[in-house]
Amino acid sequence: MSRPDSGATGTIGSHEDAIAAVGGGVIAAQGFVSAALHCGIKAGDALDLAVIAADRTVAAAGIFTTNLAQAPPVRLCRQHLAETGGRARAIVVNSGCANACTGAAGEAAAARMAAETAAALGCPPTNVLVASTGVIGVALPMDRLVPGIRRAVAGLGRNTGHETARAIMTTDTFPKEHAVRVTSARGAFTVGGIAKGAGMIEPNMATMLAFLTTDAAVPPALLDRALRESARDTFNAITVDGDGSTNDSVLVLASGATGVEIDKDLYPILLAGMRAVSLELALDVVRGGEGATKLVTVRVHDAASGDDARRVARTIANSLLVKTAVHGADPNWGRIVAASGRAGVAFEIAQATVHVGGVLLFERGVPHDDASPLAEQHLQGTDVRIEVGLGTGGGQEATVWTCDLSAEYVRINGEYRT
Amino acid sequence: MSRPDSGATGTIGSHEDAIAAVGGGVIAAQGFVSAALHCGIKAGDALDLAVIAADRTVAAAGIFTTNLAQAPPVRLCRQHLAETGGRARAIVVNSGCANACTGAAGEAAAARMAAETAAALGCPPTNVLVASTGVIGVALPMDRLVPGIRRAVAGLGRNTGHETARAIMTTDTFPKEHAVRVTSARGAFTVGGIAKGAGMIEPNMATMLAFLTTDAAVPPALLDRALRESARDTFNAITVDGDGSTNDSVLVLASGATGVEIDKDLYPILLAGMRAVSLELALDVVRGGEGATKLVTVRVHDAASGDDARRVARTIANSLLVKTAVHGADPNWGRIVAASGRAGVAFEIAQATVHVGGVLLFERGVPHDDASPLAEQHLQGTDVRIEVGLGTGGGQEATVWTCDLSAEYVRINGEYRT
Repeated sequence: MSRPDSGATGTIGSHEDAIAAVGGGVIAAQGFVSAALHCGIKAGDALDLAVIAADRTVAAAGIFTTNLAQAPPVRLCRQHLAETGGRARAIVVNSGCANACTGAAGEAAAARMAAETAAALGCPPTNVLVASTGVIGVALPMDRLVPGIRRAVAGLGRNTGHETARAIMTTDTFPKEHAVRVTSARGAFTVGGIAKGAGMIEPNMATMLAFLTTDAAVPPALLDRALRESARDTFNAITVDGDGSTNDSVLVLASGATGVEIDKDLYPILLAGMRAVSLELALDVVRGGEGATKLVTVRVHDAASGDDARRVARTIANSLLVKTAVHGADPNWGRIVAASGRAGVAFEIAQATVHVGGVLLFERGVPHDDASPLAEQHLQGTDVRIEVGLGTGGGQEATVWTCDLSAEYVRINGEYRT
Repeated sequence: MSRPDSGATGTIGSHEDAIAAVGGGVIAAQGFVSAALHCGIKAGDALDLAVIAADRTVAAAGIFTTNLAQAPPVRLCRQHLAETGGRARAIVVNSGCANACTGAAGEAAAARMAAETAAALGCPPTNVLVASTGVIGVALPMDRLVPGIRRAVAGLGRNTGHETARAIMTTDTFPKEHAVRVTSARGAFTVGGIAKGAGMIEPNMATMLAFLTTDAAVPPALLDRALRESARDTFNAITVDGDGSTNDSVLVLASGATGVEIDKDLYPILLAGMRAVSLELALDVVRGGEGATKLVTVRVHDAASGDDARRVARTIANSLLVKTAVHGADPNWGRIVAASGRAGVAFEIAQATVHVGGVLLFERGVPHDDASPLAEQHLQGTDVRIEVGLGTGGGQEATVWTCDLSAEYVRINGEYRT
């Protein structure tokens, strides 16, 4: 039995010593303020509106859902970032209503959210980024949202990180925030962020949102590159149920308040900091997946390319048969082999290996069923590791994170009615 | 509200008048015999071995799983059909053990099954096709299988269609058999068949198998073409959970016993007969899907190409959020739009439409929520229709069938342990 070295934190890279967790979430970095309040979209007095603002217009970047049914706020953000060349002053976000599949009225509502926030802050509307999450196909209540935006901007402050994380939740079971202090050769800077889950927990409910900030000084083009690169192995390497949403957005603002200027030399350390925050938030999204009882790390190695490895890892992570086997603590390597074989990339079963929790269960076409009890013991925990060697001799690898599939998922999404 | 004309039988084509259902299953056609018995792979006295044989060596064709983790019987069938140029005398099939992921010993076991059947029938081993279904990663008990094959060949007869359908079941909840009499310009012929489900009902259990026979006279190349073409809109248009197996095989034998010779002119009527049998068997596989309570017909139209339409239909059919919504009778068009948008093909949300049970729920970016109760009523039935217009102006369409996703699926695949 071999125990390959791996784990959830394995992809952050080689800058771990320079990175330390700190409090403060999305406004841990200097140069940012936020506000969160209840404006009347959600029932009761639940927080449903937040504004995250920089002290001045700063570098900004965004990545968005690849779904062709994109919600109006997603289209607006793309347009604003293109027009400004990657500059923004603030993010305005509401929960409880996704403003998706709402037609021309929805486009106007998203534009109005940006315009009202901009008017209150005294900046051009194109410097405001907009996000919405919640029910699809319902119009935003602008009569409540507009006064809420004015109150939020008037109340912007520095002690509001945790409320801001709560204000973007829909039916997430816990808020998701993380921040790190990064020590670079030119001084320290901070990266922080918040996220809400891909938990489509109420019928019609969608969206993964994440907002990051940093007080490093980063040119927009480099910030855009760092966001794309850090998301690849974090936000883009998780899956709860394979259903991408109409509203998924990850936005980042860089205030430069520390004066630490990121150039080619410091790029790797910025990337490491953004990855650390993004990975923690992404794993929290999976941990909070609907009905989830286990975090599952799927590492595929010995692939002909990184893309091949990612594709197999994603196929395994989305396999209902694998996810239900994990839920039932069944060391069912046959389902893992079958999922690997149908991913559409090079796979040599005669040279392939499957480990569960470091326990070798299948090697070169032959099962190691005597090891099943050890693997079953691992599967009874809440942090499950699956590793597959594709046997191609290619040496490339990738990791994807998912959760198990429980009867509770079906109950939440099928039996719990609107 | 518009009610587009469609339904499960819509793809059989324009020869419905010439086709009538008959009994007899896989040996309804003349020139075939079969036997089914318990040889000792399954517990108790459950049927676990079958032989389907033609009176002489006849035209044959096969299509197989695209999974790269192919089981030894699949590789053997491919090799035999290539060596003979599409000729076979018999199919030997066992249930209870898939002979998959069994290495070199598994290859030898599959070859031995062919050799023993051939010896008993007096034909070359390359004229025998082999299939296995059941647990993955376990060796076939050849000491019980070999005497079983000899007994089966000795007992071949004409009154055994129903037992043969039962002998290929694993934990299918019902046997699947269908046969039709086809009236052509040159006389009548019969097409019959049996199938077993993609119900991976026991952990480690896999495989969809189907075996067809006809007493038309069909040249091997034409039979191969007809099998591929008829499978496209039937066996290849169903999905239970998106997990393709290591053993999936569809085989066809054509005895020519009626003397009705199929050429270019009669090809369409042969195709119609094969499609009719294949569609009925394929829909039975979905109806028997694990935990299934509803048959769901997903028709995608107004696509730029047939492949685009198929891809969107398959994405919708495999969406966990759509399948759970259907299970809960929730007319959740938002999930259907979101699944359509992420299929990776042209989709114009501003022109798109969604019907559920013929009820228009979403049109040109705007919901028709007043129609929800009507759609919900439809969803409470067991035969659900979802139709999506992609709004591309392309005019192409495709249909895919699936089942709902129930908590029972999770229980069967996760909580029911080996």
